Amino acid sequence: MDRNPLDPLLIHPEERGLVTDLYQLTMWAAYRRHRQGVRGVFELWFRELPPQRGFLIFAGLAPALGFLQGLRFTPEQVRALRELPAFSGLDEGFFRSLEEFRFSCDVWAMPEGTPVFAGEPVLRVEGPIEQAQLVETYLLAAVSFSTLVASKAARVRLAAGEARVVDFGSRRAHGPLAACWAARSAFLAGLDGTSNVWAALRLGIPESGTMAHSFVLSFADELSAFRAFAETFPERTFLLVDTFDTLAAVERAAADRKLRFLGVRLDSGDLLALSRAVRAILDQHGRREVKIVASGDLDEYRIWQLRQAGAPIDAFGVGTRMVTSEDAPALQAVYKLVAVQEPHGPRRAVAKSSAGKETLPGAKQVYRESDASGLFLRDLVLPVEAKPPQGFFQPLLLPVMRGGRVVSPLPELAEIRRYVHEQLSRLPEGVKSLEKPEAFPVVFGFGEKPQATNPEAGGRRR
Amino acid sequence: MDRNPLDPLLIHPEERGLVTDLYQLTMWAAYRRHRQGVRGVFELWFRELPPQRGFLIFAGLAPALGFLQGLRFTPEQVRALRELPAFSGLDEGFFRSLEEFRFSCDVWAMPEGTPVFAGEPVLRVEGPIEQAQLVETYLLAAVSFSTLVASKAARVRLAAGEARVVDFGSRRAHGPLAACWAARSAFLAGLDGTSNVWAALRLGIPESGTMAHSFVLSFADELSAFRAFAETFPERTFLLVDTFDTLAAVERAAADRKLRFLGVRLDSGDLLALSRAVRAILDQHGRREVKIVASGDLDEYRIWQLRQAGAPIDAFGVGTRMVTSEDAPALQAVYKLVAVQEPHGPRRAVAKSSAGKETLPGAKQVYRESDASGLFLRDLVLPVEAKPPQGFFQPLLLPVMRGGRVVSPLPELAEIRRYVHEQLSRLPEGVKSLEKPEAFPVVFGFGEKPQATNPEAGGRRR
Repeated sequence: MDRNPLDPLLIHPEERGLVTDLYQLTMWAAYRRHRQGVRGVFELWFRELPPQRGFLIFAGLAPALGFLQGLRFTPEQVRALRELPAFSGLDEGFFRSLEEFRFSCDVWAMPEGTPVFAGEPVLRVEGPIEQAQLVETYLLAAVSFSTLVASKAARVRLAAGEARVVDFGSRRAHGPLAACWAARSAFLAGLDGTSNVWAALRLGIPESGTMAHSFVLSFADELSAFRAFAETFPERTFLLVDTFDTLAAVERAAADRKLRFLGVRLDSGDLLALSRAVRAILDQHGRREVKIVASGDLDEYRIWQLRQAGAPIDAFGVGTRMVTSEDAPALQAVYKLVAVQEPHGPRRAVAKSSAGKETLPGAKQVYRESDASGLFLRDLVLPVEAKPPQGFFQPLLLPVMRGGRVVSPLPELAEIRRYVHEQLSRLPEGVKSLEKPEAFPVVFGFGEKPQATNPEAGGRRR
Repeated sequence: MDRNPLDPLLIHPEERGLVTDLYQLTMWAAYRRHRQGVRGVFELWFRELPPQRGFLIFAGLAPALGFLQGLRFTPEQVRALRELPAFSGLDEGFFRSLEEFRFSCDVWAMPEGTPVFAGEPVLRVEGPIEQAQLVETYLLAAVSFSTLVASKAARVRLAAGEARVVDFGSRRAHGPLAACWAARSAFLAGLDGTSNVWAALRLGIPESGTMAHSFVLSFADELSAFRAFAETFPERTFLLVDTFDTLAAVERAAADRKLRFLGVRLDSGDLLALSRAVRAILDQHGRREVKIVASGDLDEYRIWQLRQAGAPIDAFGVGTRMVTSEDAPALQAVYKLVAVQEPHGPRRAVAKSSAGKETLPGAKQVYRESDASGLFLRDLVLPVEAKPPQGFFQPLLLPVMRGGRVVSPLPELAEIRRYVHEQLSRLPEGVKSLEKPEAFPVVFGFGEKPQATNPEAGGRRR
């Protein structure tokens, strides 16, 4: 493939099929020769929850389905693949099969935004085994990162109570696409906006942001910078007040009767002490309506501490620690074959027994039980062919793709956000605890005796 | 902007200018009104090194310059920006200035792959202040993530000695683009290949990968799976042997005289004990040439332990912990205004004094001193206008862009990789230590008395 050494190294949508592990394609070649017509069932789940996580928010379904829909290899890509040493000596039929490939699997998934727990399948793909296998890498990358940030952001949302919270993480995310996807995950999990312009335009997330320290430094003095900004944005000015001396800056700004501003932002120092002192100065000057925004290495723990201490902070900007999920930067997401079907044969449930990485065989459904008030009680994971349990049980895996086509329109992001809010309100309080959360009960019902999850937060491995 | 709800949510190269923080554009508007013709100088550096890092490998220059080159806003994008509430009420000139914008700054940078330390500028942008400001977000995201993974991968490379090491992290990276960029960073830092097909085709990184557990499970028995794969890839077969019982699988495969394979992969269990037992079985069967590959939650610490214990492992596959830099998933990268120039006026050095986030004023050059054998002795960070120091000093910041155009062809990835290898060989051993590394001496020479860095690893904040 031709390459301009100065392209920005982004993934063109047409190239998305190439974002895969080589072994997906070597297996494709071997399946083609030796397992023609075999169908496979794969499930995606999170092996364990990270420490301090009582739940995850399943996210990334829209980019995952966007990936699957229309997935193909262009003739140019197939020509390039022919040149890879890994594929030298393969027959013509292999390359032709890649060129002819159109994704034709069926996909089930939980609604995006659903709280999930360890070991529960969140997505299932059924179809020609080489196709269902091929998509593993991208699906895992899309779902696990989106879920990682949505889960972290949900905790930030819980910690912040009624305060406004905005994503400021674009610069510290793992590259530009992670920045954009993190904005999406954070918003659906309950944040109020983002600084990311792409996410504002492409996803309709409310945009947020005013000035950097450099803006203040570029003027001869701080007050000139404040005045210039307020003149440009009379209705939207938040002053960044910690470039030199925070309290002096607030004093000067508050005392300037001609200076109109909605808020001030603190980005360094002791946020509790500073927010109190700043509030007092603002109030002394009759600027009671002026809001205080805090940012700088914030996460759910720090926000909780500030709120517990009564810091008069109206809004938080959260960045690095949320978009990298710094205390747990990866989820143990896996995508495993759980059943195989020979041509015209019955389905055979399969599982691996690798030490510490055992899997449970067979396609599964997750049923979530609620009490009469709607509070979630427990999940029951059963073979798909099992009789659904009686009572207030809701099956969570629903068909989302049939033969490679999406079966119904995806919800808008704002709708997913409302759904997350509603779902979180139904989760037991202990499960939502920021530290040492209780484990939500998940029962894996296989064979005669349903096996309970282990009682530690994070639940059981599978 | 029109949006297909089923697009894969990738960033089209034409949209890259939108991957920015809103405040870059609000400041643009205010600069336009109040600071016409003002030029700015911005520097990018890492505030501190994470614990256990004695050095970083500066990476991400190629995607950063690819971003800058040809950066612009399309008329459609500007139309969409007009609709954002943040920009309501702004004058027509603002939107026209975005549409007319072509990046015209000068850029200096260290060569990609250079070892760097806390507080040293790795990149400098000079030009119209609104332009130099605009690119902050993307530059930080590109450079800090690329550097994060290159720095981690360099440690993996050091730990693995002569063993082959391959990037297997695509599924656990922070989304698909992070997967591709991580493959690039890992390779330039010294890894030998990647499983990522996009990176193999687009960047020419040697590809690696054979089979997953699902492949084994899809057959009636393990040996049939092995035979089918080996028949398809007679010259490249590595058997994944831990789906059920590792030693039994190796015994059966080794005993099958018709089965030809180059290696076996262990992906679970006690890798030290298993690699020894597997080596013994292979040797008993006269398969001394068969290699052992290990994977599964590996990082530099675990690889070092395995090698110290004498594990007979020929190659390592490294994933999650490297591509997320799990023990330190973010770098404190910043991009700050260090000088301002009024139209026809002199340059004024600027700095902020925010608590704990102070900066050093003025544009800087980094001089690296070597001894006669080429070993790096120390760095001297001086104002650009200072007289270069005498002796074996090499200036590290070189012009890479003039008026928005790249001044000379960028090195090929393989060339960067050789450069990293050479540079690492010149770093003092103690600085390369995996745990409690020594601090490389960096002297910030400002005013009369050069100020030494603090002696802890990680160096001084600025």
